[in-house]
Amino acid sequence: MPPRRYAFGRADEATHPDSIRAALAEFISTFIFVFAGEGSILALNKIYADPLTSASELIALALANGFALFAAVSASINVSGGHVNPAVTLGALLGGRISVVRAIYYGVAQLLGSVVAALLLRLASNGMKTVGFHVAPGVGQGHGLLLEIIMTFGLVYTVYATAIDPKRGSLGTIAPLAIGLVVGANVLVGGPFDGAAMNPARAFGPALLAWRWKHHWIYWVGPLLGGGLAGLVYEYMVIPTEPPLHTHQPLAPEDY
Amino acid sequence: MPPRRYAFGRADEATHPDSIRAALAEFISTFIFVFAGEGSILALNKIYADPLTSASELIALALANGFALFAAVSASINVSGGHVNPAVTLGALLGGRISVVRAIYYGVAQLLGSVVAALLLRLASNGMKTVGFHVAPGVGQGHGLLLEIIMTFGLVYTVYATAIDPKRGSLGTIAPLAIGLVVGANVLVGGPFDGAAMNPARAFGPALLAWRWKHHWIYWVGPLLGGGLAGLVYEYMVIPTEPPLHTHQPLAPEDY
Amino acid sequence: MPPRRYAFGRADEATHPDSIRAALAEFISTFIFVFAGEGSILALNKIYADPLTSASELIALALANGFALFAAVSASINVSGGHVNPAVTLGALLGGRISVVRAIYYGVAQLLGSVVAALLLRLASNGMKTVGFHVAPGVGQGHGLLLEIIMTFGLVYTVYATAIDPKRGSLGTIAPLAIGLVVGANVLVGGPFDGAAMNPARAFGPALLAWRWKHHWIYWVGPLLGGGLAGLVYEYMVIPTEPPLHTHQPLAPEDY
Amino acid sequence: MPPRRYAFGRADEATHPDSIRAALAEFISTFIFVFAGEGSILALNKIYADPLTSASELIALALANGFALFAAVSASINVSGGHVNPAVTLGALLGGRISVVRAIYYGVAQLLGSVVAALLLRLASNGMKTVGFHVAPGVGQGHGLLLEIIMTFGLVYTVYATAIDPKRGSLGTIAPLAIGLVVGANVLVGGPFDGAAMNPARAFGPALLAWRWKHHWIYWVGPLLGGGLAGLVYEYMVIPTEPPLHTHQPLAPEDY
Repeated sequence: MPPRRYAFGRADEATHPDSIRAALAEFISTFIFVFAGEGSILALNKIYADPLTSASELIALALANGFALFAAVSASINVSGGHVNPAVTLGALLGGRISVVRAIYYGVAQLLGSVVAALLLRLASNGMKTVGFHVAPGVGQGHGLLLEIIMTFGLVYTVYATAIDPKRGSLGTIAPLAIGLVVGANVLVGGPFDGAAMNPARAFGPALLAWRWKHHWIYWVGPLLGGGLAGLVYEYMVIPTEPPLHTHQPLAPEDY
Repeated sequence: MPPRRYAFGRADEATHPDSIRAALAEFISTFIFVFAGEGSILALNKIYADPLTSASELIALALANGFALFAAVSASINVSGGHVNPAVTLGALLGGRISVVRAIYYGVAQLLGSVVAALLLRLASNGMKTVGFHVAPGVGQGHGLLLEIIMTFGLVYTVYATAIDPKRGSLGTIAPLAIGLVVGANVLVGGPFDGAAMNPARAFGPALLAWRWKHHWIYWVGPLLGGGLAGLVYEYMVIPTEPPLHTHQPLAPEDY
Repeated sequence: MPPRRYAFGRADEATHPDSIRAALAEFISTFIFVFAGEGSILALNKIYADPLTSASELIALALANGFALFAAVSASINVSGGHVNPAVTLGALLGGRISVVRAIYYGVAQLLGSVVAALLLRLASNGMKTVGFHVAPGVGQGHGLLLEIIMTFGLVYTVYATAIDPKRGSLGTIAPLAIGLVVGANVLVGGPFDGAAMNPARAFGPALLAWRWKHHWIYWVGPLLGGGLAGLVYEYMVIPTEPPLHTHQPLAPEDY
Repeated sequence: MPPRRYAFGRADEATHPDSIRAALAEFISTFIFVFAGEGSILALNKIYADPLTSASELIALALANGFALFAAVSASINVSGGHVNPAVTLGALLGGRISVVRAIYYGVAQLLGSVVAALLLRLASNGMKTVGFHVAPGVGQGHGLLLEIIMTFGLVYTVYATAIDPKRGSLGTIAPLAIGLVVGANVLVGGPFDGAAMNPARAFGPALLAWRWKHHWIYWVGPLLGGGLAGLVYEYMVIPTEPPLHTHQPLAPEDY
């Protein structure tokens, strides 16, 4: 089955209740994810005078991001596809899996979800300033950019293989967990270097609320390049288009 | 399919063996969850003279709550729906998914399970005083209330999307894990501010055994507001009621 | 469907290849579990002069036990039922789910797996003494016994609900994970008090290799009491025997 | 059903698009895994002057390896079988589950993925030297070898039971998670002794980039011996070949 291709979507897509519900699901799931991801940084700022300098803090951030993204993707995957990330949406767009209209809806909803999460974090923490992302001392902006490209490539490749590939079969059941935990793993790698956003929406709300834009471009350009590349590689190089020679891993019944 | 609506349940519901078994399942699962959640606090009190001041302790609490809630929801989801939390029960009630009679049964069973867990913790720990929940120094009660509302909204929204939504399909298989781990993530956020209960039953037993009622109202009002709101939002705004324009995420066969 | 009842099994059961393969699977899975559970204690002894006094060490033990038990149950659940624990085997026996012959096979295989794991740990660690279990200073043997009863009750109740209940449906897919992680959660509770074995086989091999039998009876009596009780409660009080009044959680197709 | 046996594969296998896609999937998944596994070591080197001496660092490495391997196996299991490890490929080859041609393709792809991951880590970290594996002071090479054999046996046994066994049924859904987390558990055991590679490809790229070959043979011989043994044991001793006497764990419908 060739992937469905969309140019700009059908004429009625922008106003169809289904599109609006999907955007609402992306808004709420991105809110849940950013609230936990950024909130766990504020929690460490509440405990420590000099936060983010130990392995246990890194683990706390990795688990908060990984577990919350797992829940956020689970909560929206049946309604919107569970993107929760403009880099995932771009990968799906370049792979021809969603329309331009829907991608714009999703991107706007994701950014709004992030802004509302950052705003409510500020209120609930009695005015603590959000932190967001920047590269660490001794790390160049080019290094941060390369890290974001590579880590987001791994994330969106995992999304594509487990949640978008029409031959994913029963693997789709654990897709949200694989997506959440690959982000958790990458936070343990990239955290001390550049914070490991892998998601422009994750970076945007905290940056806006704290009005901290230093290095912010890295967290847009890196994830979008890495995510777009992953969508193209998976769609055009990995998804089989010829009948297989022999099959070791039988597909689930619903794929036949 | 419109949700089934219950006014007060059928006349024989209160005495039907099925209702009693469901209440028993809620009692035992809440017991398992509260024993681990509160017990992990006592374990840290056993190790440290000045507990709950480090990231690694926060991680221990997040994992104990998240892993135990996952098991507790798994162990009851087929019998009672796996609520283990009055805020979940209220969300399901407001969304029209359970009857008032059953909601009362569940709430009483959950509170009893929490009280028995706190009692046995006191016995097994040779008389250690349970700790329960209160807001941290420098955090207002209003901030704690807002945190509980937001975090419980995320929890019950996840419950609704993965375990209650009749279109959840194969996603239901990992519902207990998503529910457990979103609580784990939120403990990493709210822990240093207000302890992160998200569940009146989780707070009640330890408060009763220690006779500590300071700030206790927050852990009833916050979760019930957040959970009720999540039930209403998901039921009336997210669950599709019109035929979809096009479907990217095919539902599992049993939903057709 | 009433549970199948076995008196002493069929005459040919003891020599049937299926029974032998199941015992082999229990042997290897218990080996994998005990090697990781006890090995993670030796790993901390290798790092620290005064081990097991911090939250991060407690987390390391909880994750090693939880993750390894998850894998060990996964690797044997289709062959032997994935008990990996005499307390689970006793619960299944009292609930009428396995025969006496098979229970004896399993128990012997589990104890042998534990002994071989402890032996190979001693060899591979260049002669480090295994540690096993005992109650901590300030904790009475009665408290340790109560803890083991309660924690093993929660474990075997979870096993019964997710892996044995014939109405478990698709929940069985995540049974091994729920079983592993409830043990992880309970290690975070019981660790500083009594080590949190919940499994006589887990305790036996390390005790034998180190020839440390102090308090050892607790780790047999407690788990067997708690596990047996859980089997009886679930089998006779929770499993539905009457047609349900109404069903919120539809069962998986294969259960009809 | 007897396992399919391959001698050298079909004549056209080496050039069939399906084989090439499978090798590409192994390359990318091994890249994702090694980038996170080795990258998490560099992240700790970035934070600490004297890294890898605490339990929290050990946990960070265990989670980075476990979570990333879970995602890497998920992302390739439907295309290549999700080996991501020459020891798994050898086990599958000895068990007769893949052809020699395909095993060679996989091995080359895995080693290339590891080298590219190590290279990009060096670039993105501004020239930090990769670390790789060696046995710790006070641990003999024979002890390290024994540890690698035992731990890789447990890993490949888990792979075989959950991802290769044709009777695995719905267990296959969580195979990638069991595979990832048994590695996480074993890192918590073997980490302080020999680093716990369980995978020649995981060790090769970092060794090549740092040109550190001391003890390197251990991380080839140990995993290949343990993985090969696991494949033979599972294939010839555990997979049932006779009709079962009675079945407690019904197989999933697609296995009949």
